[in-house]
Amino acid sequence: MPGYTHVEGLRSADVQRLRSTYEPLAESVRALIDATIRSEADAAEVAAAKAEIDSATARLRAKQIDGAFGVRFTSDGDRMPWGNPAIGIRNPIAPPLVIVKHPSGVVSTDFHLGAAYEGPPGQVHGGIVAMVLDHLLGEVAANDPDSPRFTGTLTIRYLRATPLGDLHAEGQITRTDGIKAYAAGHLSDSEGVTAEAEGVFILPRWARG
Amino acid sequence: MPGYTHVEGLRSADVQRLRSTYEPLAESVRALIDATIRSEADAAEVAAAKAEIDSATARLRAKQIDGAFGVRFTSDGDRMPWGNPAIGIRNPIAPPLVIVKHPSGVVSTDFHLGAAYEGPPGQVHGGIVAMVLDHLLGEVAANDPDSPRFTGTLTIRYLRATPLGDLHAEGQITRTDGIKAYAAGHLSDSEGVTAEAEGVFILPRWARG
Repeated sequence: MPGYTHVEGLRSADVQRLRSTYEPLAESVRALIDATIRSEADAAEVAAAKAEIDSATARLRAKQIDGAFGVRFTSDGDRMPWGNPAIGIRNPIAPPLVIVKHPSGVVSTDFHLGAAYEGPPGQVHGGIVAMVLDHLLGEVAANDPDSPRFTGTLTIRYLRATPLGDLHAEGQITRTDGIKAYAAGHLSDSEGVTAEAEGVFILPRWARG
Repeated sequence: MPGYTHVEGLRSADVQRLRSTYEPLAESVRALIDATIRSEADAAEVAAAKAEIDSATARLRAKQIDGAFGVRFTSDGDRMPWGNPAIGIRNPIAPPLVIVKHPSGVVSTDFHLGAAYEGPPGQVHGGIVAMVLDHLLGEVAANDPDSPRFTGTLTIRYLRATPLGDLHAEGQITRTDGIKAYAAGHLSDSEGVTAEAEGVFILPRWARG
C-alpha cells in the first residue's frame, strides 16, 4: 500500500493522547477561519491578530513531518486519516464529517456548514456539495480500510440550492461488479433532498488480490 | 439578486485598502492550516499555539458581520466574492484559485495544492478535484457576474490519481441552449490530464430576463 504508513510502536492509547492534543487545535483553527472571513476589525487589530497567528504557526512548525500527513495506522490497526479535507480531525478545512456506517449498509453523516463553505450568498458552494458526496460515496464503496476503492466517475445532480446550516447526507452501494462498486446517495436539508449523486468506484491495481 | 449586496459608498479605492488588510491575514491562516496538520510539536507547545490562535480569533470577532460573507459589490461595480471556498481571497480554505478568462473563451487556472487537500497519501482528494472543476466550469458558464449560472449536473471522470503539487485546470463552453450552458474541462499535472469534467449550468429563475 504505497503511502499508507504503519507507525511502529504506536498503540491505541497513544492515538487517544495524540487526538486529545491535536483535535482541539484544529477546532480552534476552524473558528479562526470563520473569523477571518467575517471580521470587520480595523487594520491595526488585524495586524495584531496576524502576528499571533504567525507566532502560533512558527511554534507548530518547529517540529513537523516532511510533506503531507498521509494515512497512518497504529500497530493495533487503528486508521488515522487525520489530514483528510472531508473527515480529518487534524485538518481545519474539514467540517469534519463524522461518518456512521449502519448495519443496513447505509452510510450517513450529519454535519454543519458555515461561512467557510459559502458559494452563492447563504448557500453551500456546489463544489463543496460535490466534495461531501464524493467522500461519502467513497466510504460506501470501500469494503475495508485496507482495500479502498477510488472514485472512477462521479455525477452530481443539483436539484436546488443547499442552504448553509445543518445538513445530512447518506448513501449506499447499489451494485458491485468485480473491481467496481456502484454507489448512490444524496444530500439534504430539513426540507428534503437538495442534491443527488451516483458514483463508480474502482479498487486500485495495487490492492487487487 | 437575493443576497448579492451592493455596499453603499464603497469605492474601488476602498476595495484595495480592504484587500491589503485582509488578504495577508488569510494567507497567514493558510500557513497555519498546513502547520496544524503537519506539526509534531508536544502538548505544551500546541497548547501555547492554541492560546495565541484563540486570542487572534477573539480580536477578529470583536467586530464582525452577521452570518456568512455573501457576494458584495462596490458602488463602482467591483465584485468581491472574497468568502468563496474556491476563489475567496479572505477564505483560508480556498487555495485560492486565480481564474484567467482568455479571449478564446477558454477559462483556466494554475494553482498549488498542499497537505490540506490530501485524500489518498500524496494525492489530491477526489472531492477537491470535483470542487475545483465545479467552480471552474461555473465560471465558464457564467456570462457575466450579474447573471450567474448555477450547476445543474456535474460529471467528473477520474482518469488517474492527481498528485499534490502544481496543477492546472481549464474549461470552455461547448454549447448553450436557452437558460442552459454546457461546459467541459479538465484538470492536469505536468504529465497530462488526470480528471475530466462536464457540466450543465442553469440561469437561476430570478436572473432570467
